[in-house]
Amino acid sequence: MQRTLRRHALEIFRAALRAADPAEAVQRHVRLHGNVLQAGRRRYRLDRFDRIFVVGAGKASATMARAVEGLLHRRITGGLVSVKYGHTDRLRRIELHECGHPIPDAAGVQGARRIAELVRQAGRRDLVICLISGGASALLPAPAPPVTLAEKQETTRLLLGCGATIHEINAVRKHLSELKGGQLARLAAPATVLTLLLSDVIGDNLDVIGSGPTAPDSSTFATARGVLEKYGLLERVPRSVADRIERGVRGEIEETPKPGDPLFRRVQNLIVGSNRLAVDEAARKAKTLGYRTLVLSTFVEGETRDVALVHAAVVKEIRASGRPLRPPACVISGGETTVTLRGDGLGGRNQEFVLAAAMALSGHDRVVVLSAGTDGTDGPTDAAGAIADGHTLARAQQLGLEAGRMLANNDSYHFFEPLGDLLKTGPTHTNVMDIRVLLVGG
Amino acid sequence: MQRTLRRHALEIFRAALRAADPAEAVQRHVRLHGNVLQAGRRRYRLDRFDRIFVVGAGKASATMARAVEGLLHRRITGGLVSVKYGHTDRLRRIELHECGHPIPDAAGVQGARRIAELVRQAGRRDLVICLISGGASALLPAPAPPVTLAEKQETTRLLLGCGATIHEINAVRKHLSELKGGQLARLAAPATVLTLLLSDVIGDNLDVIGSGPTAPDSSTFATARGVLEKYGLLERVPRSVADRIERGVRGEIEETPKPGDPLFRRVQNLIVGSNRLAVDEAARKAKTLGYRTLVLSTFVEGETRDVALVHAAVVKEIRASGRPLRPPACVISGGETTVTLRGDGLGGRNQEFVLAAAMALSGHDRVVVLSAGTDGTDGPTDAAGAIADGHTLARAQQLGLEAGRMLANNDSYHFFEPLGDLLKTGPTHTNVMDIRVLLVGG
Repeated sequence: MQRTLRRHALEIFRAALRAADPAEAVQRHVRLHGNVLQAGRRRYRLDRFDRIFVVGAGKASATMARAVEGLLHRRITGGLVSVKYGHTDRLRRIELHECGHPIPDAAGVQGARRIAELVRQAGRRDLVICLISGGASALLPAPAPPVTLAEKQETTRLLLGCGATIHEINAVRKHLSELKGGQLARLAAPATVLTLLLSDVIGDNLDVIGSGPTAPDSSTFATARGVLEKYGLLERVPRSVADRIERGVRGEIEETPKPGDPLFRRVQNLIVGSNRLAVDEAARKAKTLGYRTLVLSTFVEGETRDVALVHAAVVKEIRASGRPLRPPACVISGGETTVTLRGDGLGGRNQEFVLAAAMALSGHDRVVVLSAGTDGTDGPTDAAGAIADGHTLARAQQLGLEAGRMLANNDSYHFFEPLGDLLKTGPTHTNVMDIRVLLVGG
Repeated sequence: MQRTLRRHALEIFRAALRAADPAEAVQRHVRLHGNVLQAGRRRYRLDRFDRIFVVGAGKASATMARAVEGLLHRRITGGLVSVKYGHTDRLRRIELHECGHPIPDAAGVQGARRIAELVRQAGRRDLVICLISGGASALLPAPAPPVTLAEKQETTRLLLGCGATIHEINAVRKHLSELKGGQLARLAAPATVLTLLLSDVIGDNLDVIGSGPTAPDSSTFATARGVLEKYGLLERVPRSVADRIERGVRGEIEETPKPGDPLFRRVQNLIVGSNRLAVDEAARKAKTLGYRTLVLSTFVEGETRDVALVHAAVVKEIRASGRPLRPPACVISGGETTVTLRGDGLGGRNQEFVLAAAMALSGHDRVVVLSAGTDGTDGPTDAAGAIADGHTLARAQQLGLEAGRMLANNDSYHFFEPLGDLLKTGPTHTNVMDIRVLLVGG
């Protein structure tokens, strides 16, 4: 029974992984029927376009580009996609441009300029396919002159140091950029733009993924100024940054395109891969395996061990009262938790989640917990996550492993390694955050 | 809309409070039909009993005793219930005995002895009604001679200092007691025993509530010895304690009664109040108000602000995808979280929960969060909890209240006080832990 539950948990996770694979994600959502490209619910008659350009950036975007080449082959006129050094692939039509991540570099700026030039010359009868995945923001740095890359980075550093939220930081950054905040879409106009996104952020907001190069931006220069003011940074940011923001507030620089701007009529932003889509697929798999299935949330965040306690609490309730589901039951959640390091052990947030949950569920029969990162790496380890059940703690005790002490030392890797309960997938070349699967047998 | 949601959240919480009221709890589960006392599913023909004794202990047990007097009046022969100093009431048949809590004292020991004598003289044609509520363990101290109260307390202190779990501590304590771990039921045999319990512990385990004076005990002297050994305490606990445990392991002292012991055929343990029953009532109320309702768990524990993030994540998912429920939706949870104090502000776990959730849900429309303790006091404040919505943070900002800084300073009381969003019930004289209600409007 326990063994079946474990096998099922792994099958459910693998179903999620398949949905998150960049090539699979493109193929599931974009299809060619004769001369018609179907992307989500929209259809593009390819005979209406003279040229098709493919641009983009992101850690998974090389694989996405390969999938697009596999679909459109010689119909692609050309293109450029910025990828992380080494994350390259052999393509025929699309150039892969390697540059710095997570710290953007001059190569990144050069790539962004070439992409800008490419889309600027696209006309009414051209289609621009834009591929965005995690890391796109750093791989597509386009500081608006005279602001330099270094000055933009310094501004980000100052905002981070003040505890500004990611939304506040983005409002400032978009107004220091030539491409972010919908400006890539404006450059491409009057061409048609189809952006395929692999989301690595909670909530899948189009203006957050890769800083939204083809999505409307609801923040303004005034918003950006307000953020700098709030944190007392107006005098501390580089002069060029403060000057640009002030000029923008006075209306001397064009705003980023706003929601409702008619230019977006020719733009489609289509999420082809995301935590939600992966969780959906996991839930579908769980149901076919016979589990009553509850998707708790794809917005899960917070300190890992406490998040694990809440998940364990749901499992205990299922066992105690058959609520909110009667067993056999499957609880799935997504998102990404954090770990506050207190010890010097080895582990990652997924392994730590499973360890904390295993402690909370110790002694419970017919219960299995799995948590893993869809990118295949959990913290600085070679594991993607771990799997455990209600008897894991007892097995660990026999091996002399002290769960409580190892959790306190953030040493989940060395807890699961001797048990053979690490989950290893190798690098998956994608990232839609984490997947957690909890099974309660009937 | 927002106002309606707030009113509904309060109504739902009040429904939970009613179910947790000690008198109401007794009246809902114990009824007199002519000569038949119906308690849960069991019926007691009162003409079969010569005498009815009422004993017990706990913070809510005075009110429970009053409810039992209101039901049985002069049929009660007599009895003694140990309560906290000042938690007294005027009763006609049952004596209320005041003693120390949370630190047990000599008055407590004396009360426990008198209860032991009372039930020991009960015979086959007697009914012993035992009333147990939170605090019963401390209010009913019965150290087994020659172990003294001070030595028993010293042992508990040592175990707490080693990080022993509550189950481990209880295994030791039951084996140093003359009443806990089912021994009160054994003393009362061959009388019939009906125990009414108001549970203040997660999971409602009968052997944990008040250390289970009338519930079977699955731990043994060997378990107790194992716990002391595990933490290296065999040599450090008082000599009388170690001696008693060793003699018990050698079979020289009678074990606590175990599951399956025939003596429990004449014993009924009936939970009349608990977090689960209160949550059930809250869920019922939410449904009658028109909400699709999900009881997340009554086992919720963990660091408050992170538990709040997970609850907020469920609300975000409901809003984003109508999953696991379509709005209008209500998510309810119970249990009790913890707060790691980092600042020197004023607050409690419920107020802190609402503050952290309000931050996570800021800007969301038609969302309300309520969390409150059923005992009417949250931390060292005069509030039971607080209520907030997606616009609370904006309102706070206008008043110059900085949510993030106040959360970091554990200052939730001073956040909600100026907003008028504290929830005050006054002391409720009950405790079935906390109730959280999250509403998502349609």
